[in-house]
Amino acid sequence: MPGTVEDVDVPSASDVLRRCRELVRPALVDAVGRLHPWTGEMAAYALGWSDTAGTPEPGGSEGKGVRQALAVLGAEAVGADAACGVPGAVAVELVHTFSLLHDDVMDADALRRRRPAVWKAYGTGPAVLAGDALLARAVTGLAGTPGDHAAAAVRRLCDALNDLVAGQAEDLRFEHRPWDGPGAVGPEEYRSMAEGKTGALLGCALALGAVLGGAPEPTVAALDRAGRHLGLAFQAVDDILGIWGDPATTGKPVHADLHRGKKTHPVLAALAGGSRAARELGTLLASARPTDAAAERVASLVEEAGGRAATRGEARRHLDAARDALRATPLTRTAARELDVLFAGLADRVM
Amino acid sequence: MPGTVEDVDVPSASDVLRRCRELVRPALVDAVGRLHPWTGEMAAYALGWSDTAGTPEPGGSEGKGVRQALAVLGAEAVGADAACGVPGAVAVELVHTFSLLHDDVMDADALRRRRPAVWKAYGTGPAVLAGDALLARAVTGLAGTPGDHAAAAVRRLCDALNDLVAGQAEDLRFEHRPWDGPGAVGPEEYRSMAEGKTGALLGCALALGAVLGGAPEPTVAALDRAGRHLGLAFQAVDDILGIWGDPATTGKPVHADLHRGKKTHPVLAALAGGSRAARELGTLLASARPTDAAAERVASLVEEAGGRAATRGEARRHLDAARDALRATPLTRTAARELDVLFAGLADRVM
Repeated sequence: MPGTVEDVDVPSASDVLRRCRELVRPALVDAVGRLHPWTGEMAAYALGWSDTAGTPEPGGSEGKGVRQALAVLGAEAVGADAACGVPGAVAVELVHTFSLLHDDVMDADALRRRRPAVWKAYGTGPAVLAGDALLARAVTGLAGTPGDHAAAAVRRLCDALNDLVAGQAEDLRFEHRPWDGPGAVGPEEYRSMAEGKTGALLGCALALGAVLGGAPEPTVAALDRAGRHLGLAFQAVDDILGIWGDPATTGKPVHADLHRGKKTHPVLAALAGGSRAARELGTLLASARPTDAAAERVASLVEEAGGRAATRGEARRHLDAARDALRATPLTRTAARELDVLFAGLADRVM
Repeated sequence: MPGTVEDVDVPSASDVLRRCRELVRPALVDAVGRLHPWTGEMAAYALGWSDTAGTPEPGGSEGKGVRQALAVLGAEAVGADAACGVPGAVAVELVHTFSLLHDDVMDADALRRRRPAVWKAYGTGPAVLAGDALLARAVTGLAGTPGDHAAAAVRRLCDALNDLVAGQAEDLRFEHRPWDGPGAVGPEEYRSMAEGKTGALLGCALALGAVLGGAPEPTVAALDRAGRHLGLAFQAVDDILGIWGDPATTGKPVHADLHRGKKTHPVLAALAGGSRAARELGTLLASARPTDAAAERVASLVEEAGGRAATRGEARRHLDAARDALRATPLTRTAARELDVLFAGLADRVM
């Protein structure tokens, strides 16, 4: 059984992430090197490897690399060599970077990891182009993986891509929906959006590692499910940080989601509560997009109406479901333990 | 031998295009129907099937469907049933639509087929999203094709996608290059850009039909080559229309390419001539982006310096090379004849 008390030498989540990043790095550098030099420069900036002058910034603004780690651990968890998961790791990391580039254009988010977003640094057109190049390269690399599993892996990645894009479409459409009444966004709609936008690629990352490692379909499906639950926990955490997160940590402006009228879990949960605070919140939100002072008040009311606690509960439930899905699957001991550590660490940001 | 004088019943290019569009239509409608409803609405608008209110506009602003026809004919040309080419036809048509949506964003082109471009009608973010959705759907559909050829077809499509994006990157970078001197765009650079931007997908369309039809690699490669030459001819024609085309026919503003400082073949060829007109042209271009009056003068000088004639020659050479590549390949008689008619018809627009 993985994760029992006898384990004395459990690495930390950041150890696990670092090991996987180091393993995947050469293949990721190779993939970016195959891009047109200009899109490659934008990709290197987006990945946090260099500044806008192309000067290396080692580790400066790099992401944690959760998705690449999941692909590597997915392969190890089904008893394959970590190297089997690397093509999947590269593909999901490139797709993730593509989605950040395009989402920042769509959401007009000027900051990403405390630096100007690619569209701010290079222009909207170039950012769109760089995203396209990353997406094309992601599928190309996976389709060219030697061995018998490339075709199944490509189909998995494609399914996740469709879900990702549909989730982003939902998220954008929600901004035009009312806060209450018959047109309001229901909990099931929110869940479906978040699963597409965030869960699909995390599930795909784990599943790809397993597919490339030659795992049977039920194991692949279980890992996909675990990753999707992790994504829902992750999105709930992100929603909390989007309202109460410290800009120095999140790298984004304070109350960013409130200013944009984003239909996030804390606000939807608060409105659903029906308390006095919920009614005041509803009135405030119905009037206009909040100013800085009003956003402060909205945040307080969301908290008072129980939105923050409800979203913490949502994150916890999905994290538990993710860990349960892992435990119910026959996986190799070390990888299962590392996945468990990683899952717990990711949700820890606001717990 | 295809195309000999004994053929009495040769269909016209538009007959061929119509037959293929009708054959592909149900599968294309099905693919668009699998998109999120909002991205599906934008896709239907982009494909010319409906207006921005979602009201059907049958045939109103539909493209000719050259790429889908090439995929169908590619399958027939290698002796397979036309239906074998349909998944390839759908994929290339969706990729083409994706590229139009994103290119219009990057080039800030407000008009497409005499209607507002998708980004003008729906906004930049939604247009980026709809393009992403089309691209994801294109690869997904092809990857899910039954039979033994899906993986090879996906690899072909991916290669074309990378070339397409790299060609677009070159085209955008060229706008920042000087008109003459050591930094000027040379003929080989222009050719490589045009082959990526326009040739890769046309070559891929023909090649996909052949791959899905089970053709041997040399036949697939020959069809790809023919399509790439067709693309270079097509781009030359497009460059001519971008300067001298009638806006009522092209659906774009007059002199659009000149106003943007696009490095097109007619201008590059004119400057390379070294005549008095070429020198005056160089001076005029070096001063500033042309006003309407100056654009008129630039167009005259390009013509006087032989740029239009040189580009007509370029189109003719590549069209001949494309038809030669077809004739040198063992293909079924009827499809080869229809391809020949189609190739000739496509370049006819300015010949």
